[in-house]
Amino acid sequence: MRTVKVCDTTMRDCEHSTEFNMSVREKTEIAKQLERLGVDIIEVGADCDAAADILNALETTMFSIACYPDMIDSECIKSHLSGDKKGRINFLFSRKKSVDPKEIESSVKAVKSNGFKVQLTANALNMSSQEYRNAFIEAAESNGVDSICVYDDIGYSNPFEFFEIVSSITSMTDLPVSVKSKNDLGMAVSNVLAGVKAGAVTVECSVNGLGRRAGNAALEEVVMAIKARRDFYERDTAINTKLLFRTGKMVSTVVGLPLLGGKAIIGDKALLNFDLEIPETAKFSVIKPEDVGIIRNSLVLGKRTTESVFEERVEELGYLLSPKQLDKAYREFLKLADKKPVDDRDIEAMLAPFEAESESNFILENFVINSGSMIPSTATVILNVAGESITNVATGYGPVDAAFKAIDAISGIDVSLEDFSLHSVTSGEDALGDAVLKISYNDKILTGRGVSTDIVEASIRAYINAINKAAVVASE
Amino acid sequence: MRTVKVCDTTMRDCEHSTEFNMSVREKTEIAKQLERLGVDIIEVGADCDAAADILNALETTMFSIACYPDMIDSECIKSHLSGDKKGRINFLFSRKKSVDPKEIESSVKAVKSNGFKVQLTANALNMSSQEYRNAFIEAAESNGVDSICVYDDIGYSNPFEFFEIVSSITSMTDLPVSVKSKNDLGMAVSNVLAGVKAGAVTVECSVNGLGRRAGNAALEEVVMAIKARRDFYERDTAINTKLLFRTGKMVSTVVGLPLLGGKAIIGDKALLNFDLEIPETAKFSVIKPEDVGIIRNSLVLGKRTTESVFEERVEELGYLLSPKQLDKAYREFLKLADKKPVDDRDIEAMLAPFEAESESNFILENFVINSGSMIPSTATVILNVAGESITNVATGYGPVDAAFKAIDAISGIDVSLEDFSLHSVTSGEDALGDAVLKISYNDKILTGRGVSTDIVEASIRAYINAINKAAVVASE
Repeated sequence: MRTVKVCDTTMRDCEHSTEFNMSVREKTEIAKQLERLGVDIIEVGADCDAAADILNALETTMFSIACYPDMIDSECIKSHLSGDKKGRINFLFSRKKSVDPKEIESSVKAVKSNGFKVQLTANALNMSSQEYRNAFIEAAESNGVDSICVYDDIGYSNPFEFFEIVSSITSMTDLPVSVKSKNDLGMAVSNVLAGVKAGAVTVECSVNGLGRRAGNAALEEVVMAIKARRDFYERDTAINTKLLFRTGKMVSTVVGLPLLGGKAIIGDKALLNFDLEIPETAKFSVIKPEDVGIIRNSLVLGKRTTESVFEERVEELGYLLSPKQLDKAYREFLKLADKKPVDDRDIEAMLAPFEAESESNFILENFVINSGSMIPSTATVILNVAGESITNVATGYGPVDAAFKAIDAISGIDVSLEDFSLHSVTSGEDALGDAVLKISYNDKILTGRGVSTDIVEASIRAYINAINKAAVVASE
Repeated sequence: MRTVKVCDTTMRDCEHSTEFNMSVREKTEIAKQLERLGVDIIEVGADCDAAADILNALETTMFSIACYPDMIDSECIKSHLSGDKKGRINFLFSRKKSVDPKEIESSVKAVKSNGFKVQLTANALNMSSQEYRNAFIEAAESNGVDSICVYDDIGYSNPFEFFEIVSSITSMTDLPVSVKSKNDLGMAVSNVLAGVKAGAVTVECSVNGLGRRAGNAALEEVVMAIKARRDFYERDTAINTKLLFRTGKMVSTVVGLPLLGGKAIIGDKALLNFDLEIPETAKFSVIKPEDVGIIRNSLVLGKRTTESVFEERVEELGYLLSPKQLDKAYREFLKLADKKPVDDRDIEAMLAPFEAESESNFILENFVINSGSMIPSTATVILNVAGESITNVATGYGPVDAAFKAIDAISGIDVSLEDFSLHSVTSGEDALGDAVLKISYNDKILTGRGVSTDIVEASIRAYINAINKAAVVASE
């Protein structure tokens, strides 16, 4: 059976939105995870600050940079073209311009002479005239590009229209066709799949469907639809679907956007209770939680669990930790196991801050809060800063606000809180609270995460986590 | 232009999931809002405890009950059939059985003799044999039912298959055809719209796409796709789209599931930055935030705002409050305005608990918390219970847990905490925290909501809100 290539555009699509800001370290970690997942191409935007790190971290996956042809002279593109490793430049064709094959000739030549591949993407090709389509394909063919992409960048197509246009394009050229669609009308997944049915050989999609506005086709939905409906699409992908859940969780952690229960494929509830009787005539494969890496029977660990058993479990859950991180995680596990039985969801919550972790300038030593409905809230916080304990006390709108002000006074870093959310990980009074917040510092949005059975402590840990990232930015 | 009817199944689809439990009062409020929105039919499940209240609250909208034909003798159905107001019974056809027209004859006759309309829904008709389809249509026609529904209850269809099957059915019968699809592979919206293109005259969908597993086609996406792409579907709906955002928020509040930024159509970010250049050849209408009732330029109110200006703003935001509720809301607004400028999002957060409100047995008078990383957390809570102040002090895993324990001791109601989440409404240190939690009591899941600039206070208010609901259940 023929294979559909999967191009992940999570980083490209998130780069245009301050909401989904990622640090260099986070982008590199995500790129490594996407490579483990088995995506064929990882695409970033031309302004990606982690491009060099990602390129170096990849072993088998093609690295792609999306940009307009007139950006070929930018330092970012130039520096990659001069590297040893090979990749791809994806030139975007703005709909504002008429297509002039000569216009892109020199850009394409420069890229290809460096051994890079070239793709041409036409924005809104689905809504353009036949004349425009002809000119676009001619421009691609006459310049010797390696593939073309049909992109509904407005998200207003429907699968019937999209099928028609992709079919007409695959019949006009032998160039491999890739497809991409925005989700403004809730049809991105259907559009991309209609493109596959019409002969496209590559799908472009993002983890959890992230991106500007209503986002893009969700990678996990596209991949699992192809797998479940092999009878219809007659295609495979190279994706290791058992890593989909883990990958979705990881990206969710980094951008601070939780996966809600009903999120198709990887939401907590999406694959549960699939107790319907399937018609005998059905040729499709039913998706089970374990197919996407959701572990149904959570193992419960206790305070006598050894480090090697803990390590095994962490690996089964899809986490790759360094020996130092593992050691730290095990110590935190023991502290938690002293209070309650620890299940997989607790472990995942505990490990999440490791992903968000940066070099720690500020370490929480101790805090005391005092608050109520009729008294001002006060917080005393002691942070360890380069080996020295520094104490500060502050008042605020509530104990958490007071604690944040005390931390600000100690750190001396001028940040502002943009967003805050907290979720319980399991049920019950001893559930872990998982706090995620965003701060802005020097025009950058930084995410912080903290976990504790005490929601005030979780909030404080998340804030310190974010402040530590701001300190890294400040030192750059 | 012909009109597509919209059947809202939010309550039907949420009834099969403890996750989305709604009280009788909440269901009635949602039904009223759906009627204002302009849906043609509101459908609930046969086990809906609010069926009588909803039926009485509706003035123009058809009320529908979904059930299996062998449930016709149940007390719930019987009591509705004997009422004055007319509605519809939607008989579900299980795929497990072969179709025997005689089998449903008596059920349909009983319903129709009471002046009710009847619809027959075939689960997974899209995956059944032609023989089964023929038998189903014959059963519908020979029994004189009023409409039939093609339902992909597994969610594994794609728009191409769904178009084919709906087309073949509309060509076989003159009965009006309705369409419904689950979202397991992320294609529910596309499937339902493919059904419209194939001649279906009714779409069945749920607000925010809620429902079991990955949910259903989202009402707001289906409606706006039809509106934006009138050029393609050549249909209208009777929906007042300016109430879509408000309706989505209201349902989100009641079920305790936030609308995330990128949720298509009504997410905070979904319609922002739609700054793309639209091709001149495009015949569609671009959706603007105000089309779905998102107010772009938030008005800021201060402490000198009069009650009548406040009332006007509340109405503009789509809220209908009783004079008593308005009065209470205005007093809370003044308290907040004393601390900070109040914008629309603050007002919405303030009003949200009114929707979740029930009769208050327990009213928060005062609380004091004391907590830290090295000391046990304690909380002293004073509740007003039937005019009397009752104080309790407790310790816990954190200040919030301690406060919940103190409240438990005062209320004497044995509940357990199932889920907890908190989001900031605006940015900044003085942002309102909006806490939503779920407790279980006597096998019921009850939602509580509380708002405050102090996240501990927001949590305590949410818990008391839920406990008050449990008290109502206990007294029933």
